[in-house]
Amino acid sequence: MNIDILTLFPEMFNSIMGESIIGRARNKGIIKINPINIRDFSKNKHNRVDDYPYGGGSGMVLMNQPLFDALKSITQNRKNSRIVYLTPKGKTYNQKIAKVLSNEENLVLLCGHYEGIDQRIIDEWVTDEISIGDYVLTGGELPAMVLIDSIARLIPGVLGKSESFIDESFYSGLLEYPHYTRPSNYKGRKVPEILLSGNHKLIDEWRTKESIRITIERRPDLIAKLFKRDDISMKEKVKLKKMINEVIKISNSKV
Amino acid sequence: MNIDILTLFPEMFNSIMGESIIGRARNKGIIKINPINIRDFSKNKHNRVDDYPYGGGSGMVLMNQPLFDALKSITQNRKNSRIVYLTPKGKTYNQKIAKVLSNEENLVLLCGHYEGIDQRIIDEWVTDEISIGDYVLTGGELPAMVLIDSIARLIPGVLGKSESFIDESFYSGLLEYPHYTRPSNYKGRKVPEILLSGNHKLIDEWRTKESIRITIERRPDLIAKLFKRDDISMKEKVKLKKMINEVIKISNSKV
Repeated sequence: MNIDILTLFPEMFNSIMGESIIGRARNKGIIKINPINIRDFSKNKHNRVDDYPYGGGSGMVLMNQPLFDALKSITQNRKNSRIVYLTPKGKTYNQKIAKVLSNEENLVLLCGHYEGIDQRIIDEWVTDEISIGDYVLTGGELPAMVLIDSIARLIPGVLGKSESFIDESFYSGLLEYPHYTRPSNYKGRKVPEILLSGNHKLIDEWRTKESIRITIERRPDLIAKLFKRDDISMKEKVKLKKMINEVIKISNSKV
Repeated sequence: MNIDILTLFPEMFNSIMGESIIGRARNKGIIKINPINIRDFSKNKHNRVDDYPYGGGSGMVLMNQPLFDALKSITQNRKNSRIVYLTPKGKTYNQKIAKVLSNEENLVLLCGHYEGIDQRIIDEWVTDEISIGDYVLTGGELPAMVLIDSIARLIPGVLGKSESFIDESFYSGLLEYPHYTRPSNYKGRKVPEILLSGNHKLIDEWRTKESIRITIERRPDLIAKLFKRDDISMKEKVKLKKMINEVIKISNSKV
């Protein structure tokens, strides 16, 4: 997989290049990450890359010429590059989108800055507009890193067998159960006894119920989504429903 | 504002230290960012920081001793530190939470890795569990950077007057209108004429309606939220409702 990043701050990406998962993926040759400085394409004698917005207003907009030339240079030897513009206006990113993008061969991540980019660049070039969440950030660089990390983890061969990503949150659709490690008694706080029992069937059941309990408490929207999923069988949904009822019963009896 | 970051990868934070907004805030002395390596607190002779989970399973858990000692060392000379653990189980981060956190004097950001940390560390120390979105990341480092960037922008004195953050998405509760810059005719794609009119009243109205149109199309949930807000007056809500009706009428007549 080849990821080109168009940015005014290519050096910001150095920090994730050697980072555990991404560093490993790069060393194995599974993924190639190329931060490209938009400024390198400026034909302005002062190397400017911003311009005034039509209609006035306080912010600046990324200049069209360097963006256009950069996009043209990246895509000229390639067909079907997926071009993602990171913007608060975009579709809210989630694990499902990460999965789709992880199947691409060529991905271009376009990082906005200032007030953004010209709508006509979006109309002409961009295939996807993505937001990583409902908060205001300075530019598209951190969102691009979030995409790279979440996508890299999904490419076959990047994670080791032991890093069973299937168990992680949002893969299974539930939030994770609580973890415990040594000591078994930590300042008077004890590990739930069942985890010391050695009975793996009971431990699995306890963990699933804890996941359900935490998800009901914190993100009931995720429970609703599980029942709408096509990849979960009717039989599994019935089982889930039964467990949810048990968890609710236990919570009520505690009150 | 003082931000301590507990992480196994302190060098990852170098990239944002000099970054435009955060670099400026640091130079002005408005914000102090201290990445702290959890490994420095390990008393294990091999400097290990992970341990096996009780109850078995494939992943590892961050060891309690270095975490405990690091948290104790950070908080011993301070009262009321807010300790945020970045985790997929957390409350979904948004601009409202950013605003709340930007009022803190001392903030500790705890970055998980491996399968996470011991539930008892969370129970004893953590004041907030936060997730930046519904996707799986390798660790809490990128989420911590997202928090730092979004929070720093809200601290008085960090952004210049000209960077009118009030206009940005999710401040006003609507997605942003499209931007245009030179040339007025870009490969046959023209700038909407109204933006060249010089009539600022009409331009403002056009922009607000474009914001409404895009928000209805992409994030109808945000429109619903606007009407529930206490800080928007009834009069403003009536005006908004009227504009929404006009936008819907225009969209329908186009079909």
